Amino acid sequence: MSEKYIELWKSIDMDIEKHNILLNALGQFYGSIYLPQKNRPQKMDYFNWVVSEVHGGRIKELNDQRALGKKVVGAFCVYAPEELVFAAGANMVGLCGGADFSVPDAEAVLPRNLCPLIKSFYGFRLNRTCPYFQSSDLVVGETTCDGKKKVYELLSELIPTYVIEIPHRPDTQQGKEFWHKEVEAFKIKLEEVTGNKITAEGLKASIELINNKRKALKRLSDLRAHSPSPISGLDGLLINQISFMDDPKRFTEKVNNLCDELEQRVKDGVGVAAKNAPRIIVAGCPMAVPNWKLHSIVQATGATIVSEESCVGTRYFTDLVEPKGDSVDELLWAIVEKYSKIPCACFTPNDRRIQSIEALAGQFKADGIIYYTLQNCHDYNVEGVKVDRAMKAKDIPMLKIETDYSMGDAPQIQTRVEAFLEIIAGKKQA
Amino acid sequence: MSEKYIELWKSIDMDIEKHNILLNALGQFYGSIYLPQKNRPQKMDYFNWVVSEVHGGRIKELNDQRALGKKVVGAFCVYAPEELVFAAGANMVGLCGGADFSVPDAEAVLPRNLCPLIKSFYGFRLNRTCPYFQSSDLVVGETTCDGKKKVYELLSELIPTYVIEIPHRPDTQQGKEFWHKEVEAFKIKLEEVTGNKITAEGLKASIELINNKRKALKRLSDLRAHSPSPISGLDGLLINQISFMDDPKRFTEKVNNLCDELEQRVKDGVGVAAKNAPRIIVAGCPMAVPNWKLHSIVQATGATIVSEESCVGTRYFTDLVEPKGDSVDELLWAIVEKYSKIPCACFTPNDRRIQSIEALAGQFKADGIIYYTLQNCHDYNVEGVKVDRAMKAKDIPMLKIETDYSMGDAPQIQTRVEAFLEIIAGKKQA
Repeated sequence: MSEKYIELWKSIDMDIEKHNILLNALGQFYGSIYLPQKNRPQKMDYFNWVVSEVHGGRIKELNDQRALGKKVVGAFCVYAPEELVFAAGANMVGLCGGADFSVPDAEAVLPRNLCPLIKSFYGFRLNRTCPYFQSSDLVVGETTCDGKKKVYELLSELIPTYVIEIPHRPDTQQGKEFWHKEVEAFKIKLEEVTGNKITAEGLKASIELINNKRKALKRLSDLRAHSPSPISGLDGLLINQISFMDDPKRFTEKVNNLCDELEQRVKDGVGVAAKNAPRIIVAGCPMAVPNWKLHSIVQATGATIVSEESCVGTRYFTDLVEPKGDSVDELLWAIVEKYSKIPCACFTPNDRRIQSIEALAGQFKADGIIYYTLQNCHDYNVEGVKVDRAMKAKDIPMLKIETDYSMGDAPQIQTRVEAFLEIIAGKKQA
Repeated sequence: MSEKYIELWKSIDMDIEKHNILLNALGQFYGSIYLPQKNRPQKMDYFNWVVSEVHGGRIKELNDQRALGKKVVGAFCVYAPEELVFAAGANMVGLCGGADFSVPDAEAVLPRNLCPLIKSFYGFRLNRTCPYFQSSDLVVGETTCDGKKKVYELLSELIPTYVIEIPHRPDTQQGKEFWHKEVEAFKIKLEEVTGNKITAEGLKASIELINNKRKALKRLSDLRAHSPSPISGLDGLLINQISFMDDPKRFTEKVNNLCDELEQRVKDGVGVAAKNAPRIIVAGCPMAVPNWKLHSIVQATGATIVSEESCVGTRYFTDLVEPKGDSVDELLWAIVEKYSKIPCACFTPNDRRIQSIEALAGQFKADGIIYYTLQNCHDYNVEGVKVDRAMKAKDIPMLKIETDYSMGDAPQIQTRVEAFLEIIAGKKQA
């Protein structure tokens, strides 16, 4: 890939040498984790190809469109209302933040005691090895957590950054009104940056575009609920991850094609793991590419991860935007309503999330929950206390894992996962 | 003290045995740190007495008033609008959260990776050794940080807890309007809890009451700006701490009495440290009683802490509530205006704080800044990056200390402080 895109990368001011190191590492990591999987669906070929072109072809596509005036908005969080971004005639992409690679660069500026996702994204902008950052005309942040909120201040010194404030009690009347005003302010900002007016027609079309994407991901998720699951946890996670990078229309089509194949598998009783393999839901912090650490450890034990209760997972696609009218303002309100239902741990209280995990455990016939917290993420870490209690009340085994992006604790996690699976096996026999 | 108040403590469901251990430890700690100080102002006698009665006489006073129907509202943060609490005919007190003593109890429930202040307060409620918690009819929390926000959910299972949402960009129009509605909702809550209506007269009177308290603390602060400082850093901190526990009217009078004495000291050129002692400002996280760790270490080196840029310090008293009208609503708006000027690191961006530290460095003729972060406090930790840069630009030496409530790192902190003072000494000679 390196030779083919070198001029493109130079044009967006990337650190070519450092980026080559990253690309090689990524390629090897993906090759060793994803490609040896047995009995993968054929239609995963597309997603393999996306990964191979994730720093190449997709970046070319975005920059070819930029040359024609189409802006790119980079984001970190499912609270960035992408419907508005597409309605403004821009592309939206998720920014890099899932690799240990950029953490040492970040730690030259930031405190070490921060969540790895935050250090990773800040480091990627500092060291200029994320082509999505380098292709973004605007970064949109949100006040979901203290760490991101404060690091956006430093990020804004490196790239134009706009922060949407998210109310933390989304169900109060004042919270909803405030959020509506924040969404409205973001619409105005997007119009400024793109030079395009957001119309009701455009917004309706982009709501449909993104709803279709969410529906395809929900369809895939529902297929993973079958036993045996027709697709691996690693592949399920990968598709959730790619949803933040790919063109939404093409991506939706490809996910639906895959789902057609998976439906046939379900009819034929074809799965990717043993029929009695333990079924695990991972609940907690988002996993950005190439954070495949927990999934690869769990999968190596023979268990199947059947769902990610995560922003890179169910929290992204469970609800749709459902307009109750045709005016821009009514559409904005529909966006506020949808987004305020996303059960992020930044909310207080966040009982909706506990209900959601309980419902997922039922739908997915889960044998256990792995509660996944990135180090120093207070929101998910503390909320784990309540989730743990709720799972105990339902007699669902739960394992809490707090980790970062380094592989140093992988053997320890493996041991804990194995012990957890023994508990599950014991429970099944009893 | 134990014998005299044992019935009172039983009546508020305290763990008498555990509380005795705490009281003995506190007494010894205070005795060893505060009482040996040389040349203390005479009027510190009152504050010594307050400390000796902080779990006794003051608790009796509050509960005697409770017996007559006066409610107690417990709080953690300078964003809890105490003017409203007093206007509702209730007392407001700061809750315990400054001691390592209760941290192990908290860690039986909470993740360890949390700020010590949060673990401390939650543990104090769990183990029933904080008489202020035990005397509170309502606890008022705020969404200033992720950790507190999420732990209030757990705290609300143990004691009635009401959470005010604080906008994190206080200067936007929607932020101000939202805050106003939150303050209004808190007013209604207080009226429910106390059974008293908050009137314009009552609110004006309580605004004056609290303004007077803030003025007295500002007067004390200004006196500490003299060289040599007429009062020690430990004593200055103690008075800031006691301001959250004592009756505001009596406290104001006693602080003003002390200031009269200090004014005379200033005239006479009397100080508590050598005239050329290095002058240090501590900037950062709040220090609740009995968190005297950093001050005692610094003071032992011969340096003087002249100001706390802290919620237990300048952030509490710098601005007054300044009504621009006589109606309840106008008074509520004045509260919103005042509180939105408090430069908490929860705000983004928070340039006002950097300007404030720069101004304090000038006013207090500071030789250096010790930037103080409680472990796992992302807001203050990340904001330290910007403060550090601002201090470098002004050529003011800064030392960053991140610590908890244990004494395990005290020798290491002492070594770092000594090295820092050598840098300052070198700079003065140059």
